[in-house]
Amino acid sequence: MGISARNVFKGKVTAVKEGSINAEVEITTSGGDKIVAMLTDASVKSLGLSVGKDAVAVIKAPWVTLLSGTSEYRFSARNQLKGTVSGFVKGAVNCQVNIALPGGATVSAMITEEAVADLGLTEGTPVVALFKASHVLLGVRLKAIPGNRPGCDAWQSPPCWGESASQTYLFILGRPQTVRASGVVLPGRRDSASADSGRFAG
Amino acid sequence: MGISARNVFKGKVTAVKEGSINAEVEITTSGGDKIVAMLTDASVKSLGLSVGKDAVAVIKAPWVTLLSGTSEYRFSARNQLKGTVSGFVKGAVNCQVNIALPGGATVSAMITEEAVADLGLTEGTPVVALFKASHVLLGVRLKAIPGNRPGCDAWQSPPCWGESASQTYLFILGRPQTVRASGVVLPGRRDSASADSGRFAG
Amino acid sequence: MGISARNVFKGKVTAVKEGSINAEVEITTSGGDKIVAMLTDASVKSLGLSVGKDAVAVIKAPWVTLLSGTSEYRFSARNQLKGTVSGFVKGAVNCQVNIALPGGATVSAMITEEAVADLGLTEGTPVVALFKASHVLLGVRLKAIPGNRPGCDAWQSPPCWGESASQTYLFILGRPQTVRASGVVLPGRRDSASADSGRFAG
Repeated sequence: MGISARNVFKGKVTAVKEGSINAEVEITTSGGDKIVAMLTDASVKSLGLSVGKDAVAVIKAPWVTLLSGTSEYRFSARNQLKGTVSGFVKGAVNCQVNIALPGGATVSAMITEEAVADLGLTEGTPVVALFKASHVLLGVRLKAIPGNRPGCDAWQSPPCWGESASQTYLFILGRPQTVRASGVVLPGRRDSASADSGRFAG
Repeated sequence: MGISARNVFKGKVTAVKEGSINAEVEITTSGGDKIVAMLTDASVKSLGLSVGKDAVAVIKAPWVTLLSGTSEYRFSARNQLKGTVSGFVKGAVNCQVNIALPGGATVSAMITEEAVADLGLTEGTPVVALFKASHVLLGVRLKAIPGNRPGCDAWQSPPCWGESASQTYLFILGRPQTVRASGVVLPGRRDSASADSGRFAG
Repeated sequence: MGISARNVFKGKVTAVKEGSINAEVEITTSGGDKIVAMLTDASVKSLGLSVGKDAVAVIKAPWVTLLSGTSEYRFSARNQLKGTVSGFVKGAVNCQVNIALPGGATVSAMITEEAVADLGLTEGTPVVALFKASHVLLGVRLKAIPGNRPGCDAWQSPPCWGESASQTYLFILGRPQTVRASGVVLPGRRDSASADSGRFAG
């Protein structure tokens, strides 16, 4: 899969708190980072989110705010990751700032060049990356329903979606696919065995 | 009216689900696309949103995430529109990607050039445009209250806002306007008859 | 403190409405502008938000949508600030538009160059800046807990956080700090007397 978002954190659901319309879901990465997402209850049910489930948290770079230097304020953002500036992709108006987290992950923020200058950001500057729970998308692993017909399109045919303990279900946008007892094979690309190492381009 | 957002979908309200603070509102376009928006209850009441009402859903390009290729994940975003890349506006850091939807509409996403390269996006690439319900603004048509005084400013004088079945109420920012029994005339620009075809510049 | 967000409004909490998961908090600036933020209840409790408390509302430029000219629609965004275009920072794809508000503050919006052209924006164009309550971060002033040990790191040691009526508590990312009875001194930078005038670089 490719996703355009620059920030994708793999982890497990470690808490779910449901409200009347919204629910708060916490993901903990293998490195111990915790990401809180705010979803609709409908999404929590639709994705079958529950404690222990594998999930990914996705945050686009423009949704990340950076704090640097001293602060006499404390912020409401549920997600506040401390790190160090590790690189820049500079443009005329905007600049992508990459932040290395202690656990080895990287967070990217899209901020203005004006802000980079105002904050005096350089490689090595310690910063905090802030983002709201309501700005986090969650994804869950898809697994095959035994008996799925070959060639179905998961996006067009929701009954193809589902899961079992042993089989990974891949889908492909707008292209045929093959479902085997052992999972799904995408001819010429990769097989179910590589599902766990699916590249996150985004 | 002009609005800076690149994505404006006209439709009708087809569902409203209220919570204690937030409400979920579904808009269905004439082409059959469904957009789910998360608003505050205060906004739902203020706009008088109810099933059957005309409305527009507005989503800025930076709030849209793109998925391409195969995916072993399913995402929480309530809005997931399938389409095909139809064009690019390229920059140094960011790139606006236009996606043609089957019904003829276009969705624009602002993603990094890095992501365009990582996903190998070219014209014709099938993608899914994801955006959260909490990232959608809704707008409703304004109509005239019979008896509104000529020259009032809707933004400064909320009592000017309102609606009737037969009259369209236009407002203009910071400039005088004329209210007639048949609606509103903006001298030298357009009359109430053109309200339905109001250009969405954004 | 430096924050990358272009829009920072200082004010006081003038209303708090709590729900089961989310809460709506209103900030009123000294100039009389009102900003509504949607937070999680957990954040409201964690920040100790209550009516009368000093707070800042932070909104990144990409979250601001602009309306110009006439409109036959009214929008759900809880925050709608009227102003006048006062300047541009132009890029290949995106453009930062600065908007002067009547009270003297400035709001920045990141929109596409395409939108600037479509809306025919020039200096002096009257516009409305829209942003959703769920896109606003809130910050509250930190004050010292009498007895805090010198040199503690507020980010790593939450027990260092707190407040008293008389002492301002500053924290610094990844660097030692000194806590004095009169507040906090950051050697070589500034003392507690300047805390109120802390520069918001973002």
